[in-house]
Amino acid sequence: MKTLKKVKKRAIKLPGKVEYTGSEPSRKGNIYLTRFEEGSVDIDHKTVAANEITPLIKDGATCWISLDSISDSHSLQELGKVLGVHHLFVSDMANADHQPKLHISEKYIFLTLKGLHFNGNGVETEHLSLILGKGFVVSISERENKFFEEFRKTYLHEASLWSSSPDFLFALLIDFVVSGYFAPISKVEEEMEEAEINLLHYASDVFSAKMLDIRKNLLIARKAVVALRDELAPLQKSPTPLLSAQAALQTENVMDHLNHLIQSIESYREINSGLVELSYAQTSNRMNETITTLTIISTIFIPLTFIVGLYGMNFRYMPELELRWGYPAIVILMIIIGAGMFLFMKKRGFLKK
Amino acid sequence: MKTLKKVKKRAIKLPGKVEYTGSEPSRKGNIYLTRFEEGSVDIDHKTVAANEITPLIKDGATCWISLDSISDSHSLQELGKVLGVHHLFVSDMANADHQPKLHISEKYIFLTLKGLHFNGNGVETEHLSLILGKGFVVSISERENKFFEEFRKTYLHEASLWSSSPDFLFALLIDFVVSGYFAPISKVEEEMEEAEINLLHYASDVFSAKMLDIRKNLLIARKAVVALRDELAPLQKSPTPLLSAQAALQTENVMDHLNHLIQSIESYREINSGLVELSYAQTSNRMNETITTLTIISTIFIPLTFIVGLYGMNFRYMPELELRWGYPAIVILMIIIGAGMFLFMKKRGFLKK
Amino acid sequence: MKTLKKVKKRAIKLPGKVEYTGSEPSRKGNIYLTRFEEGSVDIDHKTVAANEITPLIKDGATCWISLDSISDSHSLQELGKVLGVHHLFVSDMANADHQPKLHISEKYIFLTLKGLHFNGNGVETEHLSLILGKGFVVSISERENKFFEEFRKTYLHEASLWSSSPDFLFALLIDFVVSGYFAPISKVEEEMEEAEINLLHYASDVFSAKMLDIRKNLLIARKAVVALRDELAPLQKSPTPLLSAQAALQTENVMDHLNHLIQSIESYREINSGLVELSYAQTSNRMNETITTLTIISTIFIPLTFIVGLYGMNFRYMPELELRWGYPAIVILMIIIGAGMFLFMKKRGFLKK
Amino acid sequence: MKTLKKVKKRAIKLPGKVEYTGSEPSRKGNIYLTRFEEGSVDIDHKTVAANEITPLIKDGATCWISLDSISDSHSLQELGKVLGVHHLFVSDMANADHQPKLHISEKYIFLTLKGLHFNGNGVETEHLSLILGKGFVVSISERENKFFEEFRKTYLHEASLWSSSPDFLFALLIDFVVSGYFAPISKVEEEMEEAEINLLHYASDVFSAKMLDIRKNLLIARKAVVALRDELAPLQKSPTPLLSAQAALQTENVMDHLNHLIQSIESYREINSGLVELSYAQTSNRMNETITTLTIISTIFIPLTFIVGLYGMNFRYMPELELRWGYPAIVILMIIIGAGMFLFMKKRGFLKK
Amino acid sequence: MKTLKKVKKRAIKLPGKVEYTGSEPSRKGNIYLTRFEEGSVDIDHKTVAANEITPLIKDGATCWISLDSISDSHSLQELGKVLGVHHLFVSDMANADHQPKLHISEKYIFLTLKGLHFNGNGVETEHLSLILGKGFVVSISERENKFFEEFRKTYLHEASLWSSSPDFLFALLIDFVVSGYFAPISKVEEEMEEAEINLLHYASDVFSAKMLDIRKNLLIARKAVVALRDELAPLQKSPTPLLSAQAALQTENVMDHLNHLIQSIESYREINSGLVELSYAQTSNRMNETITTLTIISTIFIPLTFIVGLYGMNFRYMPELELRWGYPAIVILMIIIGAGMFLFMKKRGFLKK
Repeated sequence: MKTLKKVKKRAIKLPGKVEYTGSEPSRKGNIYLTRFEEGSVDIDHKTVAANEITPLIKDGATCWISLDSISDSHSLQELGKVLGVHHLFVSDMANADHQPKLHISEKYIFLTLKGLHFNGNGVETEHLSLILGKGFVVSISERENKFFEEFRKTYLHEASLWSSSPDFLFALLIDFVVSGYFAPISKVEEEMEEAEINLLHYASDVFSAKMLDIRKNLLIARKAVVALRDELAPLQKSPTPLLSAQAALQTENVMDHLNHLIQSIESYREINSGLVELSYAQTSNRMNETITTLTIISTIFIPLTFIVGLYGMNFRYMPELELRWGYPAIVILMIIIGAGMFLFMKKRGFLKK
Repeated sequence: MKTLKKVKKRAIKLPGKVEYTGSEPSRKGNIYLTRFEEGSVDIDHKTVAANEITPLIKDGATCWISLDSISDSHSLQELGKVLGVHHLFVSDMANADHQPKLHISEKYIFLTLKGLHFNGNGVETEHLSLILGKGFVVSISERENKFFEEFRKTYLHEASLWSSSPDFLFALLIDFVVSGYFAPISKVEEEMEEAEINLLHYASDVFSAKMLDIRKNLLIARKAVVALRDELAPLQKSPTPLLSAQAALQTENVMDHLNHLIQSIESYREINSGLVELSYAQTSNRMNETITTLTIISTIFIPLTFIVGLYGMNFRYMPELELRWGYPAIVILMIIIGAGMFLFMKKRGFLKK
Repeated sequence: MKTLKKVKKRAIKLPGKVEYTGSEPSRKGNIYLTRFEEGSVDIDHKTVAANEITPLIKDGATCWISLDSISDSHSLQELGKVLGVHHLFVSDMANADHQPKLHISEKYIFLTLKGLHFNGNGVETEHLSLILGKGFVVSISERENKFFEEFRKTYLHEASLWSSSPDFLFALLIDFVVSGYFAPISKVEEEMEEAEINLLHYASDVFSAKMLDIRKNLLIARKAVVALRDELAPLQKSPTPLLSAQAALQTENVMDHLNHLIQSIESYREINSGLVELSYAQTSNRMNETITTLTIISTIFIPLTFIVGLYGMNFRYMPELELRWGYPAIVILMIIIGAGMFLFMKKRGFLKK
Repeated sequence: MKTLKKVKKRAIKLPGKVEYTGSEPSRKGNIYLTRFEEGSVDIDHKTVAANEITPLIKDGATCWISLDSISDSHSLQELGKVLGVHHLFVSDMANADHQPKLHISEKYIFLTLKGLHFNGNGVETEHLSLILGKGFVVSISERENKFFEEFRKTYLHEASLWSSSPDFLFALLIDFVVSGYFAPISKVEEEMEEAEINLLHYASDVFSAKMLDIRKNLLIARKAVVALRDELAPLQKSPTPLLSAQAALQTENVMDHLNHLIQSIESYREINSGLVELSYAQTSNRMNETITTLTIISTIFIPLTFIVGLYGMNFRYMPELELRWGYPAIVILMIIIGAGMFLFMKKRGFLKK
Repeated sequence: MKTLKKVKKRAIKLPGKVEYTGSEPSRKGNIYLTRFEEGSVDIDHKTVAANEITPLIKDGATCWISLDSISDSHSLQELGKVLGVHHLFVSDMANADHQPKLHISEKYIFLTLKGLHFNGNGVETEHLSLILGKGFVVSISERENKFFEEFRKTYLHEASLWSSSPDFLFALLIDFVVSGYFAPISKVEEEMEEAEINLLHYASDVFSAKMLDIRKNLLIARKAVVALRDELAPLQKSPTPLLSAQAALQTENVMDHLNHLIQSIESYREINSGLVELSYAQTSNRMNETITTLTIISTIFIPLTFIVGLYGMNFRYMPELELRWGYPAIVILMIIIGAGMFLFMKKRGFLKK
């Protein structure tokens, strides 16, 4: 059975300690840089070292820096130092168990959030971080599967997108991650629907186990979505100079999606409960039917069996046994009793399904 | 069984992308225009092209523009351009999965909301949008069934209505949509009531499935109603210059209806739960009765069957068998035992229904 | 079974439409006028026409106008016109399905609320409205049973009451309606208590149906009470010049009662759930006992019946049958087996009740 | 079974009506006065008449006036008049059903709250009131059992306590009442714990009834505690000149205790539910065992009984009956069948407990 | 079974009364002092008497005072007097039942919180207190196991840590305690997971008891975590001059952890419920299977047993008995009936597992 990500034993984070806490194998990350010079739409994409970044960041250009590992604490720290990000946030980037969190400082906006994947068995989370500074956006992903690379490829040739300022790219990256929530949640929903359709073919305990599994997946998704919604909320209320009106509108859009997802997840949870109840009703109904069958058979035959037993007794003096019509009479009597019992049960409603 | 509208896989919305996400077949929409010149009540209704609209909008006149398709992205975009609506909202108009949403800008109020229909099987939603600008109201509906056309026909000759300003028309259109919520919710309620009356005739699992279905319908309705209430709330708190006092009062009225509907839906959900519980109680009661019948029959006849079996044994030396009064004696004994068992069970309360 | 008041199909309320939506037969209402001239306590009570009211309202006098029908839309509209009440509120007065609502305008305070009655089967609501203006109070009741007439009779001779200003009368009328909530809610509570005492005499499904009924009644009461509390709350926070400190204190008192009622209703709902659970426990316990009885009887006699059947076989060569002491030996064996089975079951705990 | 305090039918409270609504017998109350002159710690305690109080109240002295009856409406009204307390609050003092309530006016702070007692069967409430004015504290208790007298005796010789100002005494009296909540709630908890330990010895319905009883007691306590917490909250937020910093700290302490109690009560309610569930699990487990026993016995012996019945048939031509080894062969066959059935059931898991 | 910490009977706290309420044996505490002179990193650790502390506290140095007993009321009071802490807080330090609480005064920040331990059977709480003043931090622990001593040893040589100001040490100590929550909660989670894996091997009542136990542990943890979160919240909203920006960031970190823990605990509680339900489903499924087996055996053999009983009757005139092929005919008939019954049950779905 699927289990929730465990709460792990942890030490306090001392200033400067950056430690990966996830379950991926540790590996060296690559820093990709994509850069757009204002005026001329000049899309440029290459692997760089952390210390090569500073001179590339300047006003009027949009610099997108993307790191594809959070177990590479060296690169994380380098990047943090180069861009002036507080070490506590660098440590949050590496902490795969960290919840979604938004921090708005004067110089940058820091956001960690979860990517959701469906890996055949259930919903998995990936730890992602985004930083928006003056002239640059940083994206950091837990896995090498190039989450953000996919974004780059898909939208590379959308000139209108790249020519805008970093804050709009930042908002689009959030939107991209949140858009990725729909697929796994829809997958869970499909599983539930499929289970509902085949409800009759499951034993109630197997069905309940399936539903508990789905519930766990919904819990994982809900944790990621609700926490992100709660963190993004202040972005709407207290606007920051780092975010333009256009990007703010895009963020509002993201909030809409998150609210939609939360409502859907809540609905699924409720339907999940309803299905478990339905499965119970079915089990108890099946049991009812079984017991009714047993009762009908028993109620008809037990008295008859008594009667035949009665005339199977070996008493010497049992006058009925000597009678010519004794046997047919007793058979007729038994037919009457059997029919009577049947009618009695019919009247008491045992026979309607 | 009915299922909730699924959460669909989606791509992020890039600026300018307008894509229909609903299940209706894609088709070309018609733009209807109804116009009232102040002073003379001049009701005018015709099909127009998007670019013919601009000159018709002027101060002192009320222009109602109605589009009956959201899969016609061309018309949507044209309309958006002509009236100066932000492309993100144009995209929201086309997104049939979008939740109710209100956006108040300086130049217009944008509102998407859900129309509710009852289609025999259950509650369905229709994606609707309303825009209130200076001198005009725009209404956009997902289906061709002329939701807003019905409004026009019904209220065409209410002169007092048309002669007022666009904001009052806007408020009335919202009221019209919300008024349409009562019918399907009342339909669901009727179904539940009917099921309650016939509770005895259902197997508990069929009944539970019915209740789950009703619960899903209530969830759909609730989603539409609650989200709309939450979105309309700020309209009451921070009044906008676009909305006159009269229209604000009308909106307050809509809020009353929404609150009423929410309370009703909550009550129905609770009664729904109560009915499922009641159905359980019934099943378990029926099972109880069945088992009691079985127990009564068994408890009386099993010992008697043992006795007759006893005297059916073929031992050579069984003195009782030889006795003249052995048979009647044993019959009397059995009657006593049977009666005793019956009385014992009566005393233990097995016989009261 | 009792059912909640249904959500009815409704049309939008156009300006000026006043339509009764309740289930009472439509009838002409009477307008009663009670008037107190300051200085001399001059209580005056007569039936008047709507247009005779205006000259009677003046500063320093308290005018209480009472209409005993809401299906008489003519009188309602007349009254509204004479007193300058907005047509939307006049329409709310006639709408028996309308929720409790408070509207504070500069010239008057408008309040609709529900009266609760217990009509033998359950809790019923009556639609009431109160208006407080400068120099006058209006009360409008759905039924002819003279709800407010009862108030007049009871408190006619309380000089201190009448000599005060209209706002105090207004507060007292609210208090009178809210005081009327205690009786029906206490009635429901009594029904529940009675059911609890007789729990043992009910089949679990009958009991559950009873509890569902009570739950519906509590829902009706709760709807009326909670909505009224929520509507009255702003009266306490933002005081209006129409309400004196003395009347405000009286309203605070009403709020206390409403809070008390809500807490009581919540407690009853919880106890209701507890009772349904208790009834389940009882059913399952009874079933347990029944099955245990069956098992005891079966477990003792089925093996014995097998033994007597064994020696009832007709094999030619069964040496035991020829033995002189075969029969007593087998009887003793069976006693031992029966006793053994009994002891075995006693040990496994089947016999303790 | 224990029942909650009923919601009683009540009339509206007219100005000046003071009526006792509790269940204690009506009796004349005594007014006790304890007085401390600043400078010299002069503790003075005697019974006084209401009209003797006024001259004793002066600046720099602390006057504690204690009335031990709320059914003595004469004394209540006298006291109210002498100390200038609004008649609505005097009426609240007498209304034993009134909820906890705090009213801060310029001249005094009025507080009604509940004392909790455990009377063997369950939790009972006592209606208490406290008034803090300039130079005096009034305490009024429903019962003669000298709730506040106990306080006086215990803390009489704590000079530091008495020498401080009335507001500190007021805060201490609240603390004393709240401290009295711990005992009855702990008593309920003990009952629950005892029931848990003896869970195996109860029938599930008796256990559920016990749990429902405990739940009712927790509801009574929760009502008193939650309402008091909600009422005291504003005291912390908007400090009044009547309350010194020292007394405010003491009140904060009371809030801590109330929050602690609420959390405990919530925990107990949850554990209560858990215990009811556990009891269900036990019942169903016991039933399972019983049915399994029945099934094992039946499944083994029913086929065997059929076989012995088969050879008990009286057909003339049954070749097996004539065989020398027929009887032993059939016995061996039956042993094999019995053992086979046993093994079959063992494999299907019926035999593990 | 594990039980929650009981609500204990308690007296009101008079000014100056310091009394230990926990279950640890009373013992004398040691005061440890660790001191860092700014400029030179001078770590100094020794046992001191309370009155030796004052001269050591001065600007620019960080003084960490640690007391390892709360039953030693003498030391507590001494410490309180020396550092100028209000006696009510000193009393809170000794009150092991006190909830987490934060008090911000001008001169110091006082915080009590709970340490969580897992002692084999379940989660236990330890009462801890922290005080941040100008130039010093005080930590007080209930047990001698040197909770804070462990902190000192672990981080003694982290120079960067010690050289900072007391507020940062204060924040780190809170973080250290909160970090200690992860282990016991993870332990509870492991227990639950283990129980889930072995679900099939438990009787449903044993499993439910286990789940109730886990639920109690989660309740204890939740109480500690939620209360601490609620108390720390104001620290973030209204910054105090005692807390630097760096320490505030660290506290924000603690809040993140607390939020994470709360979400995890809520998830575990939900899964706990799901497991109890799953266990029910299993029990009822097992019962269903058992009953089905019984029904199959009975339904096949009871009619057959009746037939063999029929031909075991001793009537003189039973023509079938005389027939040569009577016996084989009846055997064939019974095979047909048995097979028919089997097919009938197969069709009704009794045989699918």
